[in-house]
Amino acid sequence: MVDIRIALAQIDTCVGDVDTNSRTILEWSRRAAAEGAHVVAFPEMTITGYPIEDLALRASFQRAARAAVQTIADQLVADGLGNLTVVLGTVGAPQVTRTSPGTRPTNQAVVLQHGAVTASYDKHHLPNYGVFDEFRIFAPGAEPCILEIQGRRVGLVVCEDIWQDGGPVAELAQAEVDLLLVLNGSPFEEGKGHTRTDLAARRAHELRAPVAYVNMVGGQDDLVFDGGSFVVGEDGSVLTSAPQFVEHLLLWDLAADGEPEHRGPLAPPLGDEEEVYQAIVTGVRGYVRKNGFRSVVLGLSGGIDSALVAAICADAIGGENVYGVSMPSTYSSEHSKDDAADLAKRIGAHYRVQPIAPMVDAFQGQLDLQDVAAENLQARVRGMILMGLSNAEGHLVLATGNKSELAVGYSTIYGDAVGGYAPIKDVDKSQVWALSRWRNNAALDAGQIPPIPESSITKPPSAELRPGQVDQDSLPPYDLLDEVLDAYIEHAEGRAELLARGFDEEVVDKVVSLVDRAEWKRRQYPLGPKVTALAFGRDRRLPVTSRWREPHA
Amino acid sequence: MVDIRIALAQIDTCVGDVDTNSRTILEWSRRAAAEGAHVVAFPEMTITGYPIEDLALRASFQRAARAAVQTIADQLVADGLGNLTVVLGTVGAPQVTRTSPGTRPTNQAVVLQHGAVTASYDKHHLPNYGVFDEFRIFAPGAEPCILEIQGRRVGLVVCEDIWQDGGPVAELAQAEVDLLLVLNGSPFEEGKGHTRTDLAARRAHELRAPVAYVNMVGGQDDLVFDGGSFVVGEDGSVLTSAPQFVEHLLLWDLAADGEPEHRGPLAPPLGDEEEVYQAIVTGVRGYVRKNGFRSVVLGLSGGIDSALVAAICADAIGGENVYGVSMPSTYSSEHSKDDAADLAKRIGAHYRVQPIAPMVDAFQGQLDLQDVAAENLQARVRGMILMGLSNAEGHLVLATGNKSELAVGYSTIYGDAVGGYAPIKDVDKSQVWALSRWRNNAALDAGQIPPIPESSITKPPSAELRPGQVDQDSLPPYDLLDEVLDAYIEHAEGRAELLARGFDEEVVDKVVSLVDRAEWKRRQYPLGPKVTALAFGRDRRLPVTSRWREPHA
Repeated sequence: MVDIRIALAQIDTCVGDVDTNSRTILEWSRRAAAEGAHVVAFPEMTITGYPIEDLALRASFQRAARAAVQTIADQLVADGLGNLTVVLGTVGAPQVTRTSPGTRPTNQAVVLQHGAVTASYDKHHLPNYGVFDEFRIFAPGAEPCILEIQGRRVGLVVCEDIWQDGGPVAELAQAEVDLLLVLNGSPFEEGKGHTRTDLAARRAHELRAPVAYVNMVGGQDDLVFDGGSFVVGEDGSVLTSAPQFVEHLLLWDLAADGEPEHRGPLAPPLGDEEEVYQAIVTGVRGYVRKNGFRSVVLGLSGGIDSALVAAICADAIGGENVYGVSMPSTYSSEHSKDDAADLAKRIGAHYRVQPIAPMVDAFQGQLDLQDVAAENLQARVRGMILMGLSNAEGHLVLATGNKSELAVGYSTIYGDAVGGYAPIKDVDKSQVWALSRWRNNAALDAGQIPPIPESSITKPPSAELRPGQVDQDSLPPYDLLDEVLDAYIEHAEGRAELLARGFDEEVVDKVVSLVDRAEWKRRQYPLGPKVTALAFGRDRRLPVTSRWREPHA
Repeated sequence: MVDIRIALAQIDTCVGDVDTNSRTILEWSRRAAAEGAHVVAFPEMTITGYPIEDLALRASFQRAARAAVQTIADQLVADGLGNLTVVLGTVGAPQVTRTSPGTRPTNQAVVLQHGAVTASYDKHHLPNYGVFDEFRIFAPGAEPCILEIQGRRVGLVVCEDIWQDGGPVAELAQAEVDLLLVLNGSPFEEGKGHTRTDLAARRAHELRAPVAYVNMVGGQDDLVFDGGSFVVGEDGSVLTSAPQFVEHLLLWDLAADGEPEHRGPLAPPLGDEEEVYQAIVTGVRGYVRKNGFRSVVLGLSGGIDSALVAAICADAIGGENVYGVSMPSTYSSEHSKDDAADLAKRIGAHYRVQPIAPMVDAFQGQLDLQDVAAENLQARVRGMILMGLSNAEGHLVLATGNKSELAVGYSTIYGDAVGGYAPIKDVDKSQVWALSRWRNNAALDAGQIPPIPESSITKPPSAELRPGQVDQDSLPPYDLLDEVLDAYIEHAEGRAELLARGFDEEVVDKVVSLVDRAEWKRRQYPLGPKVTALAFGRDRRLPVTSRWREPHA
C-alpha cells in the first residue's frame, strides 16, 4: 500500500453564485491534482455557498446546484482528472419530513470520481442555535458514508456531525475507518480555534484514526469564516494546519497502513488582537466584493471608531477605495477635523469636508427641534449626506458604531446607524482601543506609518452633539461598562447574577435599563404585519449577499 | 353525570409582560367562574406572550414565568376559585436536548386546581418553518396529558400538535377521551380560518370526540392573531365559534355521556376584504399600544397608500391620535395637497404642511445630486421630518409602502421606508384599492362619511418625484404585476414555472430582475460581522415589542 495524498481546499465561496463557485472548485481541483493529490476535499456547501438560508427551499436554485455538480464531474473528466476523487458540498434532493410542510433538501457532501457521483452523505445533525437555522431548511440524513480510496477506508461527515457526542462518528468508530474527512462551514468566533482542534482530537481518539478538517474562508453577510483547516493525528496532536483568513491548499499524506503518521507545516497562531482584526478585515472585504461594490464611504469624525473602521477598510480593499467625509457641526472641535484629515492622509483615503450647518439650519427653520431631537437631526443630516454620495458615486456606506455604544443606545437610527455594513458593531469600546493600538504597533514593527493618529486614541470619547459633551458625562467608565455588557449580553445573565458578581447596584441598573431600552428601540424599526402566507420580512430569510438570480433566457 | 361548562378565553397578551398577562388571566378566570364554567382554557404561552423568540432562553425570564404560575394559582384560591380548572400556557423547565448546546425550556400547558399545578403538558411538535422558530428555543415533550374533570377525560395538546398526522392526537385516539382541548397561538393568514376548522374536524373524527380550540387575539410585532376560537363536534361540524379580532369568552357545555352534543352561537364569517382590513387594524393597534405609544405620525401624499394607512390608523387608535403631514415638493400637484387635507378632515386627524424645498435646496447647494440620487433625497428629507416630529412629540412613525412597490424596489431606504411599522407592507397594490373601496362602502352602508377621498382611489398612482411621473411609465399594469409577484414571491416559482403559466416573457424578466435587485438592496442594510460568541443581530432574536425588563430592586 502507498501513501494517499489528501488536499484540503480552503476556499472562499459566495452564496448563490453557482457558476463562480463551480469555476473555483475546478481551478482548485486542478491545483490539487498538479500537487499529486489523490483526493481533494472542499468545505461544506461549496457549490451553493453557505449559509444559504431559505434559498435552500427554492426549487429553481436546487435544480441549478444539481446541474452544476454534473457539469463539474464532466469537466474533470474532460481535463483528464477523472481519477481524482473530489469531495464537495451542495444541496441534496428534497425530501418530505415529518416536521415541516412541503419538502426540504439535505445538506449534502458528494463524491465525484470518473465523471459520476459515486457516493454521497447527508448531514445528520442540523444545528439550530446561535447563527444556525438548519433545521428550518434541511432534512436530516441518517446513513453513514465510507469511501474506499486506494484500498483505505475514509469516513465522511459534515461539520455539526462531529460536535455531537454519540453521533455518526460513534457509528464510524465501529466501522474501523483509516481517516475521517470533515467538510465544514464553521464561523469565526474569538478563541474558537482551540475548541475545534480539541474536539477533532477527541473524535480522532474515538476513531483511532486521523481527522482531516477543511473549513471555508471569507466574509459572508455578518459571518466571517476563518479557514484554519487542519489534520489531527490519532493521538490528538495537530499534524498540519493552514493559515486563517486566506484561501489555502493544505496537503497531507495519509501514511500506508502500519506506518507512522506524517507531519506537515503548522501555521503560526495569530495573537488575540491580530485574529479579531483580520476577521473584521475579511468581513469587510467579503461584504464589499460579494455585494458588487468597489469602494466604501464613511464619516470621519476624528474619533477612534471611525479611524479604526477606516484603517480596517484600507487594509481590506485599499486606501484608494475608501472615501472619508468630515461633516463638522458648530460643536465640532478643531482637533477633530485635524485628526480626520490626518487619518485620511495616513491611509491614502479620499477626503472631503461637508459642513452640516446649512442643512441643519434649513430643518430647524421649519421644525425648531430641541434636545435629543436636535442631536438626532445632526446625525441624520450626516447619514443623508453619506447616502447621497453613495447613490451618486456608487460607494457602500459603512456605519462606524461600536458594540458598547450600540448596546446602550448611543446611536441615532437613520443617523450614524445608516450604512450597509457596520464593521465594528460586534467590537466593544475597550477592544476598539486595543485593536487600534495593535494596528499602529504592527505598522511600527513593519517600519510603516501607523494608520491611526495618536490623538484619536488618547482623547476622551465624545459624540460632539452638544458643546463640551463627552461620553463619560452619562456612562460608567468604558472598562467597567464593557464588563457589565459582556455579562449581560454575551452571557445573558440576569440582574441577580450581575450583582452576585460584585458589580455595583447603581451601575448594573443603569446599564441594564439602557440596554433594554436601546434594544427595544432598535427592534422597532422597521416591521409590518403579515396577512398573507408569505410576507416580506422575517418569514422569508435570504442571505444578504446572495448572488443567486433567477436564470434568464 | 352532568354537563361540563368549558370557557375558551380568547385573550390578547403581550410578550414579556408577565405581570399584565397574569392579571388578565385572573380577570378572565373570574369572568369564566361567574358564567358557571368548570374549566377555563387560555391560549398558548399565555403568561409569557407569544412568540417569545430567544427570550425563552433567558434564565431570569424563565424564573419570572414560573413564579407567576404559582402566584396565579394562589390568587385563584384566595378568590374562592380553587375549584375552577384553569389551563394556561407558559415556559416549562429547561432541559438538555441532544440537538443544542445548553438547555431549552418546553412550550408548556399547565393545569391549575386548588392552588397547585396538577398536570402539565409539553408541546411535542415544535414548528420551525415560515414565521415559526420553535425548534430553536424549545425542547420537545413526549408524554400525553389527559385530565379527569368531573369524571370525564379531557386530552390536552398545544397548537402544532394537531397539525401533525400521527402525532399525540393519534395516541389520544387510543385513550378514549371525551374532549380534546387545544391551546393555540395561530397567526392570521388570508383564508386560514377554514383550514383550522377542517383540520380540527379531522381530529375530532379520529378521536370520536369534540375538539375545543382556543386561539389568542391581537397584534404582536409583525404577526396578527385573529382569535376565532371554536368547538367542533365529533361529526366535524362547528358547534360554536367566537368572533375574530376581539377578546371573547366562548362558553360551551360538554354534554353528559350519551347525550347529544350542545350547540352555541356561531360568529358570522367576515368577508375577504373585511377580514384583511380588520387584521391590519388589529396589527396597528397592538403594535402602537404594546410599544408604549399613543399616537402615530405619517406622511400624507394625497395618494391611495397613505390614505388607506391613515384610515386604518383612525379605526385602530382614533383619528385624534393620527398626525398627518403633507410634505409637498415642487413636483407635487395641487390635487395631491387637496386630497391629503380632505382625508385628514374626513378621519379627524391632525394635519400640517411642511414643504421640503428649503431642506432639499440646502442639500443640493452642497451635493448637487442628479437623477435617482436627487429623487431619493426628496424621500429622505420627508423621512427626516417625520423622525424629527416623532422625537419631538412622541409619535410612532408609520411607513406607508405597499407590497407591490416594496417588491419591485419603488421605495427609498431611509426615505419613505422610514418607520417603526409598515401597516400595508404585506398588501399588494390591487388589494390596496380593494380594501379602500371596501372601507368606503362600509362607511356608506353605515351612513357615515367615507374616509378616503374618491380621487385618491381613482387617480393614476405616482410617486411625484419627477414632473409628470406615473408608476405605469416603468411598471406593468398593477393587476398583471401583482399576479406575477404573487407567483414569484408567495409561491416561490422560478422563471420556468412563471413562463409555463403563460405570463409574457418580457414582463416576467422585468419583474424578476426588479424583485431580485430590490430584495438584495433591502437586505444590505444594515449588518456587520460577528466576532464574538453572541453579536447584536440575527443570532439574538427577541420580539420587538417584548415588555420583558430585567426585574429591578
